[in-house]
Amino acid sequence: MYDLTIELCADSDKCLYEQIYDYIKAEIRDGKLLAGERLPSTRSLAEYLQVARSTVEYAYEQLLSEGYIESRPYRGYFVCAMEELFRMEEPGKPYVREQESPDQARPGEVWEYNFSPHEIDMSGFPFGVWKKITKNILTYGNSDLFARGEAQGDYDLRETISRYLHSSRGVNCRPEQIIVGAGNDYLLMLLEKILGRHVRIAMENPTYIRTYRIFQSFAYDIVTVDMDESGMRPDRLTEENVRAAYVMPSHQFPMGTVMPIGRRMELLKWASGAPDRYLIEDDYDSEFRYYGKPIPALLASDKQGKVIYIGTFSKAIAPAIRISFMVLPRPLLERYRAECSFYSCTVSRIDQRILNEFIRDGYFERHLNKMRKIYRAKQELLLRCLEPFQREYTISGENTGLHLILTAKGDVTEAELLERAGREGVKVYGLSESMVEESNRKATVLIGFGGLTREQIAEGMVRLQRVWL
Amino acid sequence: MYDLTIELCADSDKCLYEQIYDYIKAEIRDGKLLAGERLPSTRSLAEYLQVARSTVEYAYEQLLSEGYIESRPYRGYFVCAMEELFRMEEPGKPYVREQESPDQARPGEVWEYNFSPHEIDMSGFPFGVWKKITKNILTYGNSDLFARGEAQGDYDLRETISRYLHSSRGVNCRPEQIIVGAGNDYLLMLLEKILGRHVRIAMENPTYIRTYRIFQSFAYDIVTVDMDESGMRPDRLTEENVRAAYVMPSHQFPMGTVMPIGRRMELLKWASGAPDRYLIEDDYDSEFRYYGKPIPALLASDKQGKVIYIGTFSKAIAPAIRISFMVLPRPLLERYRAECSFYSCTVSRIDQRILNEFIRDGYFERHLNKMRKIYRAKQELLLRCLEPFQREYTISGENTGLHLILTAKGDVTEAELLERAGREGVKVYGLSESMVEESNRKATVLIGFGGLTREQIAEGMVRLQRVWL
Repeated sequence: MYDLTIELCADSDKCLYEQIYDYIKAEIRDGKLLAGERLPSTRSLAEYLQVARSTVEYAYEQLLSEGYIESRPYRGYFVCAMEELFRMEEPGKPYVREQESPDQARPGEVWEYNFSPHEIDMSGFPFGVWKKITKNILTYGNSDLFARGEAQGDYDLRETISRYLHSSRGVNCRPEQIIVGAGNDYLLMLLEKILGRHVRIAMENPTYIRTYRIFQSFAYDIVTVDMDESGMRPDRLTEENVRAAYVMPSHQFPMGTVMPIGRRMELLKWASGAPDRYLIEDDYDSEFRYYGKPIPALLASDKQGKVIYIGTFSKAIAPAIRISFMVLPRPLLERYRAECSFYSCTVSRIDQRILNEFIRDGYFERHLNKMRKIYRAKQELLLRCLEPFQREYTISGENTGLHLILTAKGDVTEAELLERAGREGVKVYGLSESMVEESNRKATVLIGFGGLTREQIAEGMVRLQRVWL
Repeated sequence: MYDLTIELCADSDKCLYEQIYDYIKAEIRDGKLLAGERLPSTRSLAEYLQVARSTVEYAYEQLLSEGYIESRPYRGYFVCAMEELFRMEEPGKPYVREQESPDQARPGEVWEYNFSPHEIDMSGFPFGVWKKITKNILTYGNSDLFARGEAQGDYDLRETISRYLHSSRGVNCRPEQIIVGAGNDYLLMLLEKILGRHVRIAMENPTYIRTYRIFQSFAYDIVTVDMDESGMRPDRLTEENVRAAYVMPSHQFPMGTVMPIGRRMELLKWASGAPDRYLIEDDYDSEFRYYGKPIPALLASDKQGKVIYIGTFSKAIAPAIRISFMVLPRPLLERYRAECSFYSCTVSRIDQRILNEFIRDGYFERHLNKMRKIYRAKQELLLRCLEPFQREYTISGENTGLHLILTAKGDVTEAELLERAGREGVKVYGLSESMVEESNRKATVLIGFGGLTREQIAEGMVRLQRVWL
């Protein structure tokens, strides 16, 4: 038997039993104690090390639990047989931090003015209200909030969402049809489980490229369909034999096209032509329309259960509020309930309750009205700043929400425009980033205004004028 | 031309332009105004209705935006041609509210004592601390918190998690390897995108049935592998040619088996036998060990990048805290970065920051120590209450965390045991619920103690004694 000469250190961070445990474990791992060897009895080791017997027992217990040693009745403790321990370390290549999102400057680049179409204005965010609601919710009486919630999301919130959809999007749906989830990306992943694999899906070109990438990662068979001035052309859907079409009827990203009721009806007619055809309506950003009433959702015209509606609060409140929702037509709801309802809800109940009170008590509407005014003023300012560009560029996209679109009349390329802007520290976004397939469009750029102040918009546009005119 | 006799109501909720808009829209939808018909000019309609011309113009603008009418230069406004509007309503079958989770009593059932193995004790939750941290975070200076965050989760939180994994789970990993997500279910969905489709995966039998259902919904090819007293048997993995194995080495659910180091090494050796083989370690509940040091994670022994580690805070803090994380080995991290990093993080930055401070400032450790004491006392109480059962039942599962396991020595069936308990208003959980494949085990039930008070445990056990002995 092996002599365990363990140098115990009384003023170590580790207590005595841990030091014994660590020592023996290391001896086994290093191959100095071999499989089948017997350890000293707890009594003899305790005497040898001059510690209490219970200290050694405690160390042996832990080694037993982890499977380093085994106890044989009346015989003592033995080192277990085990696969040779791997001593190879992983190659020492350091882990690098992931790349930032394409909306952020890479090291070396300086974007003094980032005209991102995805940024929003956070200065209008009602911190005070949010904080007050949060504080009221986090009280001892609400401990049920920390318990597991319903898979589809809290019923109260779903009721509030259905009321909101009715008043602001013209939609009649039941809270039972709504599934709350942490962001659109997650809801699309869930939808994949409901719709099934190998779906042949139509998308507009250009489209919201993040969704395109998501469908790609689903191994969906993606058919790109050109747009005319009303949006997605329905004739191609039948020709191409697709099962679902992804559309943004309230205002298409990035073109800002509002789909007229006639085209909506054509799409609905297409969908009703076969039992398992669906339209996926991404109602992203629909709150930000600055003239007239909001355009109703496509779902509002759907009488046959053909529209899967996805809405989000990330844009209208704050990107960090990871709460989106999906409205399912009956056949898909039934499939969800039967096959997917064991997926836990991805949004914390606390956050659901905060959002519920924020909407229910009228803060959301007030916030939207305030933001509409702010964005409308920014859009007007940007339009004024774009006036000098009118001779050489076509300006469009008044319905897009948070950006405008500039198309060159001449032969300059998109890359040239971006490069010249970049030299001035100005970041604008090429339409090609939203294109699934290349087309020989004139050079087109998106100029977002959500995240910039009025001063930044004005100054950035002066710089663009310098290099684009 | 059609005469638009619109009865305008001055004291309606709707303003005049909206009444005109609604009226014309309804006429078009009802087929009373037909495609190609000309509308009265704005001037003549305004005169006819005795309203300002701008009121009619505003109504027409909205109809134009939505595509109900079109404007032909010098000729006026015409009703658009569109697919026949669907007038069929959906069949009037009411939507029913979804079923509650199987852990909740159905209507008609009364569970006075629910010995659920999944419930936790929320009485120990540090509301005050949570509220204080939240309050400090929701200040105006932190408005960046409401902006979009990093896809893998906030770096600060990932750093804190990596430090926590080091100190409490014996794991060395880099924050770069960690992906934060809203719950294990979501992380498994993301893992599906990384590992790819049609994975042949091994699971223990019995296992955590929720994960089994999730893998089923992925259309994974699931191979169930029997357990011996050390856990999953590695010989079957090679035989069955699986690519991944899902294990819970710290304590298996539901059996509570702690996988000894020798078996861990065998599994790691199997995984290193081919480049794309992985072990998925679900370290669920590992914090709740009441005697000795915590058992290190399997990941702690992995030197070759073979372990995908999944941990959660839902159990250790509160189910409503939807924050889990996954540690990826290098090859899968690279695949994630290349193919999946466009998926937005599903956890709000506010929640990430709260959790970060909760762990970083030592509250989490204090909370865990407190909960371990609470659960240990409950486990001891339950063990005492089970003493009278020892002659007819075998009691096991001291390592399971939040439940114990009772196996009948006689020929009573599981269904009988559940039924007799139910008559007393006591809910216990049959092992068969965790079985993927039937086996001819003796009747076995799980008795959870996390969510019940000490009084409830004692009283519930008295009732069980009445019907089970």
